[in-house]
Amino acid sequence: MKRREFTRSMLAASAAAALPLPQPVRAAGTARTAPLKVNGARLNDHLTKLSEFGKNPQGGVSRVAYNDADKASRPFLMQLMRDAKLDVSVDAAGNLVGKRAGSDASLKPILFGSHTDSVPFGGNFDGDVGSLGAIEVAQTLSEQHVTTRHPLEVVIWQNEEGGLWGSHAATAVLGESDFAITNSSGRSVREGIAFLGGDPDHLERTRRAKGSIAAYLELHIEQGGVLEKEHLDIGVVEGIVGIHRWDVTVTGFQNHAGTTAMADRHDAMLAAARFVDAVNRVITSEPGRQVGTVGKLAVFPNTPNVVPGKVECTLEVRDLDAKKIDAMFLKIEAEAKKIGAMNGTTFAFKQVLDNVPAPTAPAIRAMIAAAAADLGLTHKTMPSGAGHDAQDVAQIGPVGMIFVPSVGGISHAPNEYSKPQDITNGANVLLNALLKLDAAP
Amino acid sequence: MKRREFTRSMLAASAAAALPLPQPVRAAGTARTAPLKVNGARLNDHLTKLSEFGKNPQGGVSRVAYNDADKASRPFLMQLMRDAKLDVSVDAAGNLVGKRAGSDASLKPILFGSHTDSVPFGGNFDGDVGSLGAIEVAQTLSEQHVTTRHPLEVVIWQNEEGGLWGSHAATAVLGESDFAITNSSGRSVREGIAFLGGDPDHLERTRRAKGSIAAYLELHIEQGGVLEKEHLDIGVVEGIVGIHRWDVTVTGFQNHAGTTAMADRHDAMLAAARFVDAVNRVITSEPGRQVGTVGKLAVFPNTPNVVPGKVECTLEVRDLDAKKIDAMFLKIEAEAKKIGAMNGTTFAFKQVLDNVPAPTAPAIRAMIAAAAADLGLTHKTMPSGAGHDAQDVAQIGPVGMIFVPSVGGISHAPNEYSKPQDITNGANVLLNALLKLDAAP
Repeated sequence: MKRREFTRSMLAASAAAALPLPQPVRAAGTARTAPLKVNGARLNDHLTKLSEFGKNPQGGVSRVAYNDADKASRPFLMQLMRDAKLDVSVDAAGNLVGKRAGSDASLKPILFGSHTDSVPFGGNFDGDVGSLGAIEVAQTLSEQHVTTRHPLEVVIWQNEEGGLWGSHAATAVLGESDFAITNSSGRSVREGIAFLGGDPDHLERTRRAKGSIAAYLELHIEQGGVLEKEHLDIGVVEGIVGIHRWDVTVTGFQNHAGTTAMADRHDAMLAAARFVDAVNRVITSEPGRQVGTVGKLAVFPNTPNVVPGKVECTLEVRDLDAKKIDAMFLKIEAEAKKIGAMNGTTFAFKQVLDNVPAPTAPAIRAMIAAAAADLGLTHKTMPSGAGHDAQDVAQIGPVGMIFVPSVGGISHAPNEYSKPQDITNGANVLLNALLKLDAAP
Repeated sequence: MKRREFTRSMLAASAAAALPLPQPVRAAGTARTAPLKVNGARLNDHLTKLSEFGKNPQGGVSRVAYNDADKASRPFLMQLMRDAKLDVSVDAAGNLVGKRAGSDASLKPILFGSHTDSVPFGGNFDGDVGSLGAIEVAQTLSEQHVTTRHPLEVVIWQNEEGGLWGSHAATAVLGESDFAITNSSGRSVREGIAFLGGDPDHLERTRRAKGSIAAYLELHIEQGGVLEKEHLDIGVVEGIVGIHRWDVTVTGFQNHAGTTAMADRHDAMLAAARFVDAVNRVITSEPGRQVGTVGKLAVFPNTPNVVPGKVECTLEVRDLDAKKIDAMFLKIEAEAKKIGAMNGTTFAFKQVLDNVPAPTAPAIRAMIAAAAADLGLTHKTMPSGAGHDAQDVAQIGPVGMIFVPSVGGISHAPNEYSKPQDITNGANVLLNALLKLDAAP
């Protein structure tokens, strides 16, 4: 029996299962008006202005959720939202919400947005592109006097980087252990929500029920190098991968590195090393986009002249298919058993994270692809290896995600970069996919 | 080119090369008197009394060189030496020296002894057995009214565990970087020498020149499990292995563990893991008693969801033959290059320790073996995988070492243990080998 201990309770069944059927895409050759377009120069200018909040001397930003820079950026963001004629408020979870009425008050709202918090020493595009892109779409609709059928809500989720806390608080019930989690701002989730003007004791005021939204769209940078390498404009995200994570303990026997013959050793480091190699071997043994990582490792007692008696490391496996993750883990576990038998060491696995995959809605994928085609942009369907607020929102309604290229595939670093034209393209796809969603029956 | 940076300068050529030829061992059946024997009960009682200094509640001792327990134990040791009719002094290096005149003042002294400092949370036998065994031998000689031809000196070297500093200060010239080395007592070598009553500014007063001693004998626990496993009483040490140590840096490329495809990774952890396995493969690819260890390893940035960009680890190779160590390192280096080429990572090696092997004198080995045989004890010739003060003394004269079994091969731990009879056996072999040495022409 695997012991399971989840850091966050996540629903096993995605709300994406309850999607409307894929909508027919407008056939080629049908008469059409030119697609609506955002003001790309303004959008990129807003990105530059946002990058001043938490700017680091060496480049990039440290606008970590709940720190002073994060808070200081919010009046700027709210002003941009007001300029876009949105009705702005801070919800009980500390998220910024900008509402715009639709023509049919009986319809559920379409949400779109992203986040503006960064990792420590992060870049200026992760989250920012989708947040300011969403505001730009709202402003374009306003300027073009477009009234949608559905009510619209631009949402800037708080504390995405620390664990998707803004979207989680708005879609699930937080426990005390969730509230207690602290990030490098020094503030806990509970303190952070209050710091941003939310009300951690009354999250029920903002919690969105399953089925309460028409859809959620999120524009984001890819954070990987696939689109750039394949010279493509747009990624149509087919889902956000599930992440399973284990703490692995390898137990051997600590001994003198001079007096203990090679054959007499129960070297936990050697067993851990073979394990790391086995993880790579198992993960790459099948076609597919699954990834497996041993990113953290500690040796005990960790001194040059002692045969290590214990190693603690992490194992993380991600894929769009939870069954594939499970199957891969079973193979890895079997390999570990064999490795332990080779030198008299033992492996213990404790699952600490079990984020389920969050597929996007096929209907919305088709609309995003169609919007890209209308705009003359190339695109491909791809998974998101990184986590996003969309995976939380997927628990309550159908979601779609739009990726734009990341230069060099670099993210979570000061030299994270996406080209202005790619950003403009992404916002245009967001705008037109939104209009298709709104028009869908 | 390998960069070499040595923590201690050590002579490449051992003084053991300048030994007298092996002496004939008394033939079986020759008329003989019964071998002289020590008072084993007294010796083991002294060991129990010494274990009170620095005793830990959970067992074992923390009599780390230069700490209060280390200093507090010295009056006790000096009293034991005086009881054995030794002329006791503290040399400029802080070592305890107990002298006994011989009948021929023109002969060089025979030294014998060990150390009484421990590692933190160490045991009660490492060093103590040889130190109190040497005092017991002196007391037995006194009680039996035996006058040797050579002058005798019992030496209890200070700070063996921190780097053989007492024997090193008495046989080589220390530099400022040596004096600055601090152990867990919080005192540097310089401060420690003064703390113990030595004179760090005048080590020349105590330094022993090459060729200035007749021989050095050291009794010690094996610290490995060979004698116990093979049911043998005595180990005749053929030499103290050389220890070469390197700092190894594996450089890859840090990236997002979700968005970076397996094929696009330059995972420093994966390369380091394959390196650890390769070290084991190379070291065990040839017969012999060489050992290779990766005991210390650090991952950067060391977080579950980031592909490691850098790993720093140590490599240590020990063998009696320095050429074999060099050959093994070249193979390991070549393997590392191949491993790096597999995933676009690089390996850099920086040598940080180059302790040369210290062979014992074949003549003394024969005398130790003969003494064991005279006493009806079984023995085998074996290397010492651990470092000992004898390796420093080997730079100035011929040395011999006697091992007694360590239960379970455990050392540097509270449950380090050697049986009273084995300890008595060892002291008896020390006594009789000393007498053979003294009698040799």
